[in-house]
Amino acid sequence: MQFTSEQRLEDGVLERKFTLDEIPGILWTPESASTSAPVPLILLGHPPLGLNRMYARLVARAQRAAADGFAAATIELPGSGERPRLAAVDQARADLRRAMEAGTPVGEEIIDALVLPLVDKAVPEWQATLDAVLSLPEVGGPVGYSGGVISIGVRLAAVEPRVVAAGLFAGSLVPRTMFEEARQVTVPLHVLLQWDDEGNDRQASLDLFDAFGSKEKTLHANMGGHTGVPQFAGEDAAGFFARHLK
Amino acid sequence: MQFTSEQRLEDGVLERKFTLDEIPGILWTPESASTSAPVPLILLGHPPLGLNRMYARLVARAQRAAADGFAAATIELPGSGERPRLAAVDQARADLRRAMEAGTPVGEEIIDALVLPLVDKAVPEWQATLDAVLSLPEVGGPVGYSGGVISIGVRLAAVEPRVVAAGLFAGSLVPRTMFEEARQVTVPLHVLLQWDDEGNDRQASLDLFDAFGSKEKTLHANMGGHTGVPQFAGEDAAGFFARHLK
Repeated sequence: MQFTSEQRLEDGVLERKFTLDEIPGILWTPESASTSAPVPLILLGHPPLGLNRMYARLVARAQRAAADGFAAATIELPGSGERPRLAAVDQARADLRRAMEAGTPVGEEIIDALVLPLVDKAVPEWQATLDAVLSLPEVGGPVGYSGGVISIGVRLAAVEPRVVAAGLFAGSLVPRTMFEEARQVTVPLHVLLQWDDEGNDRQASLDLFDAFGSKEKTLHANMGGHTGVPQFAGEDAAGFFARHLK
Repeated sequence: MQFTSEQRLEDGVLERKFTLDEIPGILWTPESASTSAPVPLILLGHPPLGLNRMYARLVARAQRAAADGFAAATIELPGSGERPRLAAVDQARADLRRAMEAGTPVGEEIIDALVLPLVDKAVPEWQATLDAVLSLPEVGGPVGYSGGVISIGVRLAAVEPRVVAAGLFAGSLVPRTMFEEARQVTVPLHVLLQWDDEGNDRQASLDLFDAFGSKEKTLHANMGGHTGVPQFAGEDAAGFFARHLK
């Protein structure tokens, strides 16, 4: 992990951009983080729109995490931002758009082609990010994963024992095979669902919630579309991480 | 409203028992409540098991409300505690038990007979309680309704303009006609659902949530059965009332 820039935000949060095997990322640590008092970590997932475009929302989430005493880290997703495109995923995205515009059902093969390559590639990258960030003396554990493409969160929560709690956003299409992976997840879960999310299948989201193997799982459904998550939903999610990472 | 007893709880909350047209009730006010600083009010709904049996849970909810600066009030439900039995409701309850023990589907006529007489009788009583409690100089508004038989909460939220926010527990069977009443509800809603509630129909609860006319409505689903509501769910509900009654 190579740090490429560093700045102190107005609330004392230290923001460091880095690259890790040519993947750009950002690490935020609260002023309180130190070698003698390492802080827990939240991995900030996000949709595949590019870190630059997501920056304002990510930094707000990182500052909320820092206010609770947590570090936060994120990386560019495969095929996003300035990373090489994933041709198959781009093709699937075009197919999805065509199907939605035509009002025809979105076939499972489109969802698989759109999501699975991203999950296969992204999850090991998040794990490598964990290796790197947790090697810093000012960041300890435990680790939470928050938001972004839900299938990435499901796979990561299922395979990565360092993730002890996950806050997921049921806002993207889910391949059928992910339901089996969801059964392997046992960590506490906090799942957000936008009730009228135009690009999401509400019943599939409820089925996925039902499938998770976790003994503690909570679904928070709110009114509105994909981008209409109310501010208080963020407060509730912060409360979830405060309960499990402290 | 006649006060019949009064005691100061250890956290300074004033607990006063009262009767109102022969209906027993309890009013809790925080130490801060005064004529010059009247406090908002939360009506504490509860299942028809009798105030005495529910007392410990009710006083805990009232103390939580008081800690947020709210008064809380509750009354005995029709047919519960020492109030005269409702023969038709008792009959329906026996029919329900028989159906559940036999594993046969619970017919709509049983649900109607069990719930509708209770709603018809209870809602005007809650409104009379509001008249009485809001006439006290130390209690002002706004008013929230919380918990208990969900159909009572639905009807009260639909017909009583002084109720500006409702926290409902999707834990009891709902007559089909209540879905129409739910469409009339427009106040902010916070709905709790226990995902594995043995006596509840999960899909009907999701349909009822969908039916509410409110622009702000949130569903919090948690694992476990009817009585397994996790403590953090209470915290989230308290946050909901703090947002809307302050």
